[in-house]
Amino acid sequence: MNSGPRGQVWAHVGQPFDRRAYDVVVIGAGMLGAGCAAALREVVPGRSLLLLDEGGLPNEEGATLLGAGVWDAAGLEGHATELAERSRAELQRWLGDALTPRTLLDFGAERTEAAEASAEVLQAFDDMADWVDPEQLPHVTRREVLTYRPGELTLRLGQGAVAAGADLMLNVRAELTPGGVRLHRLSVTNRHEIVVHETHDITVDQVIVAAGAAGPELIESGLGLHTPHGRAYVQRPRLRQPSGPTSPLLRAGNLLLRPLNGEYALYLPPRSGDPHGYRPTSGRLTGVQVGLRRELLCDLLPRMDALPVLATEALGVGRSLADIEGAWLGLPGGDPQHAPTAEQVTPGVWLLLGGSRTRGGADTLGLGLVRELAEQLA
Amino acid sequence: MNSGPRGQVWAHVGQPFDRRAYDVVVIGAGMLGAGCAAALREVVPGRSLLLLDEGGLPNEEGATLLGAGVWDAAGLEGHATELAERSRAELQRWLGDALTPRTLLDFGAERTEAAEASAEVLQAFDDMADWVDPEQLPHVTRREVLTYRPGELTLRLGQGAVAAGADLMLNVRAELTPGGVRLHRLSVTNRHEIVVHETHDITVDQVIVAAGAAGPELIESGLGLHTPHGRAYVQRPRLRQPSGPTSPLLRAGNLLLRPLNGEYALYLPPRSGDPHGYRPTSGRLTGVQVGLRRELLCDLLPRMDALPVLATEALGVGRSLADIEGAWLGLPGGDPQHAPTAEQVTPGVWLLLGGSRTRGGADTLGLGLVRELAEQLA
Repeated sequence: MNSGPRGQVWAHVGQPFDRRAYDVVVIGAGMLGAGCAAALREVVPGRSLLLLDEGGLPNEEGATLLGAGVWDAAGLEGHATELAERSRAELQRWLGDALTPRTLLDFGAERTEAAEASAEVLQAFDDMADWVDPEQLPHVTRREVLTYRPGELTLRLGQGAVAAGADLMLNVRAELTPGGVRLHRLSVTNRHEIVVHETHDITVDQVIVAAGAAGPELIESGLGLHTPHGRAYVQRPRLRQPSGPTSPLLRAGNLLLRPLNGEYALYLPPRSGDPHGYRPTSGRLTGVQVGLRRELLCDLLPRMDALPVLATEALGVGRSLADIEGAWLGLPGGDPQHAPTAEQVTPGVWLLLGGSRTRGGADTLGLGLVRELAEQLA
Repeated sequence: MNSGPRGQVWAHVGQPFDRRAYDVVVIGAGMLGAGCAAALREVVPGRSLLLLDEGGLPNEEGATLLGAGVWDAAGLEGHATELAERSRAELQRWLGDALTPRTLLDFGAERTEAAEASAEVLQAFDDMADWVDPEQLPHVTRREVLTYRPGELTLRLGQGAVAAGADLMLNVRAELTPGGVRLHRLSVTNRHEIVVHETHDITVDQVIVAAGAAGPELIESGLGLHTPHGRAYVQRPRLRQPSGPTSPLLRAGNLLLRPLNGEYALYLPPRSGDPHGYRPTSGRLTGVQVGLRRELLCDLLPRMDALPVLATEALGVGRSLADIEGAWLGLPGGDPQHAPTAEQVTPGVWLLLGGSRTRGGADTLGLGLVRELAEQLA
């Protein structure tokens, strides 16, 4: 641990900024960016470090606040197992008691060794008797997973990085330049318009782009480098069924239901990335306007037979896009099922992408991945 | 063959329409719709039939005019083989000499029984020596395929259907109603606005929706039936390399290069369907604005090493969307690799979807499929 002075924090443009250079800049203070900053302060405490974000810590519109926050290493193989274990160690260190074990019920149509009969297991959870059709999903595996709030984790990681000497600048738009970063500090006018208040060019040895879905575009527009990555606008509908501290998570395939704020939240990766130029559009189901996007509806419909709870009024479909929480996610290689990645795109520039997996995704591997990246940069 | 009178044609709103009922209405006068109408006149000549389209025969903005027009039965299995053979018989009957045999060079990385060495075969086609990297695509299979112009075929099919007694109405927007179809006849104002001139309700026993990408939406909005189908906006860039009557077609995986109008045209199915609400957007390649959409660029880039001709100035990337021909294609099940389908969506209503396959797609199976549908309706 670095025992030097705390880092400096610039939250608004009233605080003057006169730095001309950093050894390392991390663009994006979401879970991966803040986690990377925290890891770098430990691994290379001698290097000056600036963590920045266009919004807050974490960004209010980023993927972090939409994350499920479920650590679940089941089914992982090879290096991913190692990353998951490193992630767990980091989660325990940063979250302590805020990392909560819960039971996950993993429903499947096929029998595995550890599987129990769905009908029997469901009886143990009174409220859930009607959630699953035991004829269509006859087998279930129980396991313990760890749950957390990605926003809370990110706040702790960012604060920890600052306590260990990282500088932090919020409300700043970053632009990549050859050999550095251009900082556009933002302020809000009386008319609630976001404007650039001042611009600074700084030279940087190592830039880590952890800006989620905006990352590939930053690299392309700033450095003229094409990347094969994609993005998708992902919604997290609510399932208005009561949940408490002992409520289990449910999984069926890549669909995940997670207790959240006394209800449940539904996570389902998209079938594909969204095309360039797409703007999120609310859907229409046989003529009725709803807030869920059409593609999510189409992906949920075939699951309603096996999971009748999805076909009830409990599923919050909303009336307009604003009714449903959603965010843009960066997809490595444009593939919704790709694991999170850290790659060097050009000397001195690394790109972190979390992806949209609900299993073996950034929730489970992310902090191990950024720890590994920090060690590679050392 | 029906030896009765020719059908009636309504091309513009000046021609009065007073019919109240048809036995069969085919919505969409593209290749599949016109082909279906022609088949129905032969199989069930006693049933009154109206073929209609929002535009011309074929629709100027539909998928038909974007089609490659390549009949190629290689690699087909089971029922698809039968459909392909029936399609070939129909193509020969309707097109005669306009159905042109050409050589197709199918390049692959893997050796098959009939494969020759790419480097040697390429020498036989002088102009193409640099098109393919024989190290990356060392093997090639030659075969004869049949080529045609889907627009010309559709015109002949539609005219043939009318000659055999089908009625034809152009410039009419159709809406599905329970037990019938509502016809909105369109006209163009002095200001070039398309307006509804008059509306007619007709009762119909059997409706065949062959409106391409617009088909599922017609069924959903008219009948309140959800369908799992999707659509994609597909572009057909030009490759400005000279072609003549004996120029071969080239295939590498699902990418097809076809001689067209003295040049080549490039066909590549999309990786996924486009989301609801997406409007075609021109792309940007490391900062430069081009007419190709971003996703097509991303799909072409990794192929440029094996097909260096794609990396030359010959590839027409354009400057804006209007520079590149494109159309919406209907994707069965939202899957770009799905074969063409004919399905009954509710009693009395059938849906035809051509899909976006460049092999085993509507070009090869379509006319067999509509022939089969006509027999099922009999």
